[in-house]
Formats: sequence, C-alpha cells, structure tokens
Amino acid sequence: MDLIKTTAMAIKPVSEEWYVIAQKQLDNLTKPPGSLGRLEEFARRLVAITENRNPSLDKKVIFTIAGDHGVVDEGVSAYPKEVTSQMVLNFLRGGAAINVLARHAGSEIVVVDIGVDYNFGEVEGLMNMKVMKGTRNFLKGPAMTRDEAVKCVESGIELATGYSKKGYKIVGTGDMGIGNTTPSSAIASVITGTPVSEVTGKGTGISDEALIRKIKIIEDAIRLNKPNPKDAIDVLSKVGGTEIGGIAGVILGAASNRIPVVIDGFISTAGALVAYTIEPEVKDYMFAAHNSVEKGHRVMLETMGLTPVFDLGLRLGEGTGAALAMFMIEAGLKIYKEMATFQEAGVSDEIIN
Amino acid sequence: MDLIKTTAMAIKPVSEEWYVIAQKQLDNLTKPPGSLGRLEEFARRLVAITENRNPSLDKKVIFTIAGDHGVVDEGVSAYPKEVTSQMVLNFLRGGAAINVLARHAGSEIVVVDIGVDYNFGEVEGLMNMKVMKGTRNFLKGPAMTRDEAVKCVESGIELATGYSKKGYKIVGTGDMGIGNTTPSSAIASVITGTPVSEVTGKGTGISDEALIRKIKIIEDAIRLNKPNPKDAIDVLSKVGGTEIGGIAGVILGAASNRIPVVIDGFISTAGALVAYTIEPEVKDYMFAAHNSVEKGHRVMLETMGLTPVFDLGLRLGEGTGAALAMFMIEAGLKIYKEMATFQEAGVSDEIIN
Repeated sequence: MDLIKTTAMAIKPVSEEWYVIAQKQLDNLTKPPGSLGRLEEFARRLVAITENRNPSLDKKVIFTIAGDHGVVDEGVSAYPKEVTSQMVLNFLRGGAAINVLARHAGSEIVVVDIGVDYNFGEVEGLMNMKVMKGTRNFLKGPAMTRDEAVKCVESGIELATGYSKKGYKIVGTGDMGIGNTTPSSAIASVITGTPVSEVTGKGTGISDEALIRKIKIIEDAIRLNKPNPKDAIDVLSKVGGTEIGGIAGVILGAASNRIPVVIDGFISTAGALVAYTIEPEVKDYMFAAHNSVEKGHRVMLETMGLTPVFDLGLRLGEGTGAALAMFMIEAGLKIYKEMATFQEAGVSDEIIN
Repeated sequence: MDLIKTTAMAIKPVSEEWYVIAQKQLDNLTKPPGSLGRLEEFARRLVAITENRNPSLDKKVIFTIAGDHGVVDEGVSAYPKEVTSQMVLNFLRGGAAINVLARHAGSEIVVVDIGVDYNFGEVEGLMNMKVMKGTRNFLKGPAMTRDEAVKCVESGIELATGYSKKGYKIVGTGDMGIGNTTPSSAIASVITGTPVSEVTGKGTGISDEALIRKIKIIEDAIRLNKPNPKDAIDVLSKVGGTEIGGIAGVILGAASNRIPVVIDGFISTAGALVAYTIEPEVKDYMFAAHNSVEKGHRVMLETMGLTPVFDLGLRLGEGTGAALAMFMIEAGLKIYKEMATFQEAGVSDEIIN
C-alpha cells in the first residue's frame, strides 16, 4: 500500500502557466487562432504535463495487460475463458488488432500477464507479473483479497515507472480478459452510483437474454460483497479484475512521472476510474482515446470530465483505441513543433474584421 | 462540358457483393465480429470501391487547391486577400499545417493555383492550372462565367485522372482561399434549400457584426444571381469559387477512376455537394474526413448521407482534416490485411452466449 500512497502523493496538478506558454506559440503559427481545435489542446496539454517547451513523443508504448475472471463461470461472456491465453499468444506472434494498430501509430506494445488462468511457462516477449491465476467468482465472494488488489496496482505503477526510466514519453493502456466488461460495469456502477442496467452492455456480443442475466449477476455481486465506493482498492478487490488494477497502476505511475497516458476503452476507463478515485489529480495526465460502444463508458468519462479523442464505434479493447488516439495526439504536437510562424513565412497575421 | 458529362457517366455505384466479400474476411479475423466498428466499414468500402480483394493505399496525395474571391472586397473575411498567395508560398516551403499533417499521415501534397489573384511566375512545386485571377465579386454579378466554372471542374478531373495514372491509390481534397467560406455557405444554402443564416459561420474568425453582414451579403447575392439549384455548374459559376470547382472535379475524377476520395472540411464539402449534384453516385467513393466547426458543414454532409470520420473542432481547411482521416481509413485497411485469422492463430471462435 505504501507504493500506492507515495505514488499518489507525487501526482501534482499541471500548471495553467504552461498552457499559456504553449498557446502563445500556437497563436504565432500560420493559421487563424484556435483553428486547429483539439489538436491545439493536445499540444498545450503535452507541454503542461511535461513542463517542457519542446516535448517529444519519440518513444511510445502500449501496455496490453491480461487477466482472467472467475465470474465467467456464470456465462457472462460470448467466448470461453481459454480465449484469454490464446489471445495473449496471438499478441506475442503479432497477429492481433493491437499489433497492427500499434505498428501503424509507431508505438511498441508490451504484453503483460497479471492474472491469466494459464501456465505460460517461459514465453519470449511476455512480461510475467502474475498476481494470481484468474480472479475468484465474485458472485460467491470477493474477486481478490485486498493484498492481491494492491499487488495488481503496484505492478502497474512499477511498469509505468520502469518505462519512464527507459525514456518512453507516452504510454497507452490496453486489456485482454474474457469476461472483463462484467467487472468494469460493476466498478462503474459502484463508483459513479449509477444503476447497473445503465452501465452494462453486450461486451463482445452476448444475446439479449445473456445481457439480462449479466446485469442480475452484477447486481447480486454488489449486494453480496458491499464494496465501499470511497475506497477504490476495496471496490477493485471485491468486484474488479487483475488487469483493471494493473491499468489503474499504470495510470498512477505515468502521472507521478509526468508522462501522458492514453486511456483505451471501457475496461481501461474502469481502471482510470479506480486511479481517479485514489487520486483525482491523475485527470490532468489522462487522454481518453475514444467513446466505445459499451454504454457505461460515457458515464465514467463524464464523471472524470474527460472528452474522448474520437468515436469509431470500437468495442475491442487491447489498446486499439489508444494506438489510434496516440496518432492524433502526436499530430497536435507536430503542429506545435513543425509549423512556420507568421513572421518566418512572411504571412500577414492582421485581423481586419 | 463534354469531359464533365463523360466523367459523370463513367461513375458506377459500388456493388454490395464486394462488401460481403470483405466482411467475410473481416469476420475470420481474431476479434469479435464487428468489434472494430467503422474501421471495418472503411476496409469494406475500400474493397468495394477498388473491386480488389487486396487493395493498397501505398501512394496517397492531397490536392490543396487555391483561389481568390472577389467578394472579399465586401469585408467577409478576418484576413486580407494577400494571405491566399502568401499561404501558397508557405505550402511550397513546407511550413503550413497541411505540410505537417500530410507528412504525419504519409501523404504527398500537390499545391494547385486554380484562381489566385497573384502572378506567381515560375515557382518550383506549384501546379499552374489558373483559370482566372480571382473570381468577380458576386454581390455585383456572377462570380464566374459558365465557361470558367466548367474549366475549373475539368481541371480537377484532369488532376485526379493524372494522379490515378501515376499509380496513386487515394486522394484527399484541400483548399486555400481567403473568403471561401462565403461562397461555400452560398452553395450550401442554394443546393440544400436551407436558409443562409443556418449555413453561415464565422470562418477564420470574424466578429459577430461581420457575421451579420456576411449573411446579408450572401442572401443579396443569391437574390441577384438566381442560381438554379438543379444545375450545379450554374450555382458554381454564380456564387461559387474556382477552388470549389476544382475540388468538385477532383471528386468526379477520382470516382470515375474507382479511387477513394477523402473530403476535407466545409469548403471541400461544398465542392463535394457540387459533384454530388452533377452525379449522386460519387457518394460511394467519398469519405467525409471530419465535422468542422462551420455550421453549414453538417447540413451538407446530411444531404449526401455522409458520416464524418472524426470531430476535433477543426476549422482550417487546406486538407488538414483529410490527412488525419486518411490515417484512420488506412488503419481499417491494415486491420483487414494484416490481422491473423482464428485458424492461423489457434484462437477459439466459438460463441457460447
């Protein structure tokens, strides 16, 4: 717990002063003031987060963190549990959507086993941070002990801090875990105080019938486990998941190292909500990648005051949205760094009407 | 006029059959069916447009087409007319937003003088297709003769066909022209039948007072010139602009060569509306890049049934939105081409709920 506390204490709100410095430069560039909209916002935020007039995003990494979920025994997912470990191996061979999109956006990916219910042994390229072999079925009791939940968050903090030390300038979050929209909806409902039915969707694509069952299971699990909405670790341990804890840790770790962190979709945003409940100031370091199809996503983004970069109807996870958003955020930075000023270009900046 | 007619006649609607072929492949990939949302739509559309199971976007180009506007004499823009030619030179030196963003998205740009009120002489890198030195002030009579308008559209067709022959696989549109939101609003109002006040915004950033004046000028010009909404060339010649005609031509030319065309923002969409009025089947070949701040933009997109790729509050033009959208469209294609199938990856595709 000490690492979580000291990390949270190291997170400072970004200073307005740096926004002003960045905007001044943006307004000197050969374009009408403000005409690049949110690209300018991205540039301002990167300057303020890094407290650097000339930030760089040359080294990018997305952490795709994998874990299994005991509640899958209740039939909450369209896919069998084995798909989690099969997909981890697919990531390592480069055949998944996140491999394609991270490559497209110029980002590396790191695949992390934090709680997969499978013994990988020694596999090249897989980062082993296993806390447990899948969570327990939270319809029958807590998904994790408090210690296990703390360990997941601490692992994420170590991951982000380690990559910060290696010189990475921006990190993205990603998840893999069959059944993990179920704990994410549970976390969204408990922390935002929204009825379960309003934050629960069809995940990878279950039937209408299975959705009704899924909602009931989450409601029952919350009633049984009584997570305390003010205590994010309590919520995470009782109705969460290992990868969600890891993601929360990555976000806290990135913010404490003044590194921007791109939050992928629904599951990553549940992790962000855990981080935000521990330390609301992480908000200044987060970029919400996109608005996913899962209906609980928007509720969590609104709670944290985050506006997604795009909306292309994605509902895959893995970090796929984070990869695409990184490209847009980098576009903002390149505008800031590479455009000519009015003076350099000999263009009139006189406003006449 | 013959070139416009033969080009329009060569445009065929894309066949549903190819969407089905592409979707079949998309559904074999290691992800839940449909979970990549609009990225899958982009892939399907590229396959159908090119009638190729394995299309490529390796050569990309954005045409940034520049022209001046006589109506600027009425004080409709925040900037003086000279900025058009100054910005053309800025594009050629690589210092503008479109240079930065096209580079970021891996696209070339071609800067075209179709109607700038400036004598560039021989400048390296500038494509000279000058039809006239700026349009006439349409508050006093038609902006162009019918012949001039036809020449602008024909130039655009030749541009797209030329680059298709050189092996380019996707084209984007872009514009530069101080004052060009004014003719774009006029075109939007006339063709969609929407009141001028509902399709007119502040462009590069005029005052509230200047906006009221701008609306009145457009209303008066439409009353004076009586453009026929069913005759796109009539609308273009009376209240349009040279670059808007060039953009319409690029779109028709791309569609007739079965090449996808990415429509930038408000001005490009006015060009798209002209092309669409000439031949509605161009629609199948167009990708709307983004939703700009100009309020008339959405009205035109809805008329054509196009859904923008993103919304980042841009209002710059030049092709900046098209560059960013190209990256997203290419992401869809890479998913389609580079992901592993369930069989290849040994991942279960059994749906159990």
